[in-house]
Amino acid sequence: METDYACILSIGNEILIGKILNSNAQWIAQKLTLLGFTVRSIVSTRDDVLETAEAFRQAIRLRSRVIVSTGGLGPTFDDKTAESLARALNLPLVLSREAYEMILKKYKDAGMSMTPEREKMAYIPLGAKPIYNPVGTAPGIYVKYRGSHIFVLPGPPKEMTAMFENEILPLLRKIAPRIFWGEFLLQVKGIPEADFAPKVKATMKRFSKIYVKSHPKGKETGLSIIDVHVTCSGEDKKEILNELWGAFNFLIESVKEMGGILEVKKEPSINRL
Amino acid sequence: METDYACILSIGNEILIGKILNSNAQWIAQKLTLLGFTVRSIVSTRDDVLETAEAFRQAIRLRSRVIVSTGGLGPTFDDKTAESLARALNLPLVLSREAYEMILKKYKDAGMSMTPEREKMAYIPLGAKPIYNPVGTAPGIYVKYRGSHIFVLPGPPKEMTAMFENEILPLLRKIAPRIFWGEFLLQVKGIPEADFAPKVKATMKRFSKIYVKSHPKGKETGLSIIDVHVTCSGEDKKEILNELWGAFNFLIESVKEMGGILEVKKEPSINRL
Repeated sequence: METDYACILSIGNEILIGKILNSNAQWIAQKLTLLGFTVRSIVSTRDDVLETAEAFRQAIRLRSRVIVSTGGLGPTFDDKTAESLARALNLPLVLSREAYEMILKKYKDAGMSMTPEREKMAYIPLGAKPIYNPVGTAPGIYVKYRGSHIFVLPGPPKEMTAMFENEILPLLRKIAPRIFWGEFLLQVKGIPEADFAPKVKATMKRFSKIYVKSHPKGKETGLSIIDVHVTCSGEDKKEILNELWGAFNFLIESVKEMGGILEVKKEPSINRL
Repeated sequence: METDYACILSIGNEILIGKILNSNAQWIAQKLTLLGFTVRSIVSTRDDVLETAEAFRQAIRLRSRVIVSTGGLGPTFDDKTAESLARALNLPLVLSREAYEMILKKYKDAGMSMTPEREKMAYIPLGAKPIYNPVGTAPGIYVKYRGSHIFVLPGPPKEMTAMFENEILPLLRKIAPRIFWGEFLLQVKGIPEADFAPKVKATMKRFSKIYVKSHPKGKETGLSIIDVHVTCSGEDKKEILNELWGAFNFLIESVKEMGGILEVKKEPSINRL
């Protein structure tokens, strides 16, 4: 059975001690969503082989069609993602000739030579393929395991985003569900979220394909501000737009009826990567 | 068996579609780390009862001493965290008189009355305690289950941080391990990370209590910039400072030896919340 699920793993102590904001996960989540995948979980683990391997295994158990990890691919002792993945898949970690050549060329071009630390980055699980890194030196790893396409990327955002866009996006476009994703965003002032809740329900009842989420931004018992974010996904573009515009007009009427102040932050539109 | 583990759950579709950056998790991770806990995982789940309940159960299975969740406590249909927690703990969801009074007073003071949507926020798992929300209207939930202290907080950062600081911090201080946490941060220019890796290893071998993590910021084969973040935790403040200062001087010597340029971003110090 295949799913449209995607899981994101963010690996590195720096996330778990709160040293950095996990912007990689947000960036990837947005891309995968716009490709039609349903991101089911984002999990951050420490630089620990057992814990990271378990996170990979869990993502596989969920029958994720796509698993993307970031972090832990560098030359230092605590870069353990390749090892964690090998353990999760029960595969030996082997020197990839292709990865080795990628690394060798990078350093050679810079007049630098191979060292054990640099060579370490060429070890990937048996049968996996290295992913070219146009910015840094650590190759990524791609492996298909059962129904899951697993992409392992380095943590530095410039490297991660370049590799995602150059190497992964073309493959994801091929395996992505034929799903389009549309949305609009309203900001409503002067109606407490709890009073607006029945309208949210009514909108979803009337337009059965959409999902409405209200995000309180102000003070429920003072100046209430709610962002109303409406999304819709499906195979039929026209139907999505019909649903979105229907819900859009219905919500605008509802806000007027209740005496709220309305601002259209984003009109209904379909976004597709 | 008790552990010093903490787990953070971030609940809400808006995280998984990449609409928002998960700044709540970073904020909480930093606080828990400074309190001496070891944050073992950060997990984001959708507004789905089964998936969120499973995430709570997993955190409990890890014997986490502390579990903090954010999101999903509001008045709308998709605020399902109380229900998810009740399911995870196998407890019925019941109207809490105390939570009801908190909510009633908030709205009453604003000249507003109770509605089914507002009352919904008063339902918490049987035996749990509501946590007062000084900013918004949705109370949090506190429950001790086996060895785990579980704190359920709303998603809006202003509400979450106020509740954490007012209501949770005093309790966490009592149950926190007697662990101090120290760190320093160096920035090294002109030495590729792979060449610096052996020095990282050597430092950790010589100062066995510290943990060194290098974060590449520049270009490995061009102008290399590495942030070297060194942490140390333990019960003995003096020992921590000794280890940190020892490693600090050792690393500075190493950088000099290798002809790198060094900037001290943060001197060794102990931080304790």
